[in-house]
Amino acid sequence: MAVKEESHRARQAQETKAQVARAARELFAEQGYVVTTVTAISEAARIPAQTIYSAFGNKPAILREIAGMWIAEADTRRLSNEALKIEDPAERLRSAAHWQTRQFETGIDVIRIYQEAARADARMAAEMQRVWAAREHELELFLQSFGDQLTDRALDLFLACTATEIYQLLVLDRLWPVEDYEAWLGDTLVAQLLLTR
Amino acid sequence: MAVKEESHRARQAQETKAQVARAARELFAEQGYVVTTVTAISEAARIPAQTIYSAFGNKPAILREIAGMWIAEADTRRLSNEALKIEDPAERLRSAAHWQTRQFETGIDVIRIYQEAARADARMAAEMQRVWAAREHELELFLQSFGDQLTDRALDLFLACTATEIYQLLVLDRLWPVEDYEAWLGDTLVAQLLLTR
Repeated sequence: MAVKEESHRARQAQETKAQVARAARELFAEQGYVVTTVTAISEAARIPAQTIYSAFGNKPAILREIAGMWIAEADTRRLSNEALKIEDPAERLRSAAHWQTRQFETGIDVIRIYQEAARADARMAAEMQRVWAAREHELELFLQSFGDQLTDRALDLFLACTATEIYQLLVLDRLWPVEDYEAWLGDTLVAQLLLTR
Repeated sequence: MAVKEESHRARQAQETKAQVARAARELFAEQGYVVTTVTAISEAARIPAQTIYSAFGNKPAILREIAGMWIAEADTRRLSNEALKIEDPAERLRSAAHWQTRQFETGIDVIRIYQEAARADARMAAEMQRVWAAREHELELFLQSFGDQLTDRALDLFLACTATEIYQLLVLDRLWPVEDYEAWLGDTLVAQLLLTR
């Protein structure tokens, strides 16, 4: 039964990490990443600070756990793989609008926390750079699937249309229903990227 | 000759303020608004700190002077008045793309300084809110000149297309020539805002 017990302990450890990450995410979003202490996270999560230190080591590691949970929830990998199977190029772009919207919907707070952390800490800035570069690389692969059906500057225009500032403006400030944003993004990607023949 | 002397002194005082504002703008952009001290501005501008205090009172007032110089240089008021005289609606929108581009070109650094100041200081955040609200109000008046030729959400879409993040991405990061950005913005405003009949 040793294996069973070990996997039970691993599950428990993972649940503790998730509990810490959820509490930290709320505090980071409300009070800011920089001013939130591990002590405050410990109180909010009802988990001893010492346990948090042994599980994570430091605050950046907690933020990484938050980002990992977000990526899992947004389900981007599966959604973008599904998008790649869509034959019609306009529909494939609308499908990208769907997964981009899903990312914002599930994690605009995480993006903002990262932006704040990056402004305060050069290592976090470098880490965010790496994450954005990886995203850009995946987008490049996605856009390559269109062959010569897209305009030359398709990647730049995709990044422009999916600017965080626009989601924030339309959905959070001007209170567009998220479906309206997704429809707008789909239409706009089609109009901006797809060559008409 | 008293009047002449007085106007000479006023000109000199204005020149001193401008000199301080120019030096401060550079320091704010390079090192950040929050960490830049009046002492550092005094050294860079070669003007005694005491003179800076009597001319401005505090750092927010220096930032206000910087913003005023920017607005004068961007010449928005004149450009938007000229735009209003253009009969053709598509051309009128392209003219708006021109003045928006001019604002970014002459002051993207000022916008970034304000954003940083607003994050650090609630009063500066309130001030930036007021500036954005005034801009929105002017845009509303501009868009009203189109009567019923625009889509319902014209103002939201105008604000989305002119997101600072997009200018930063395309011109500063991806190195688009500024004329390409202006042409893209003009085309996009026409495509997004103008009803086709």
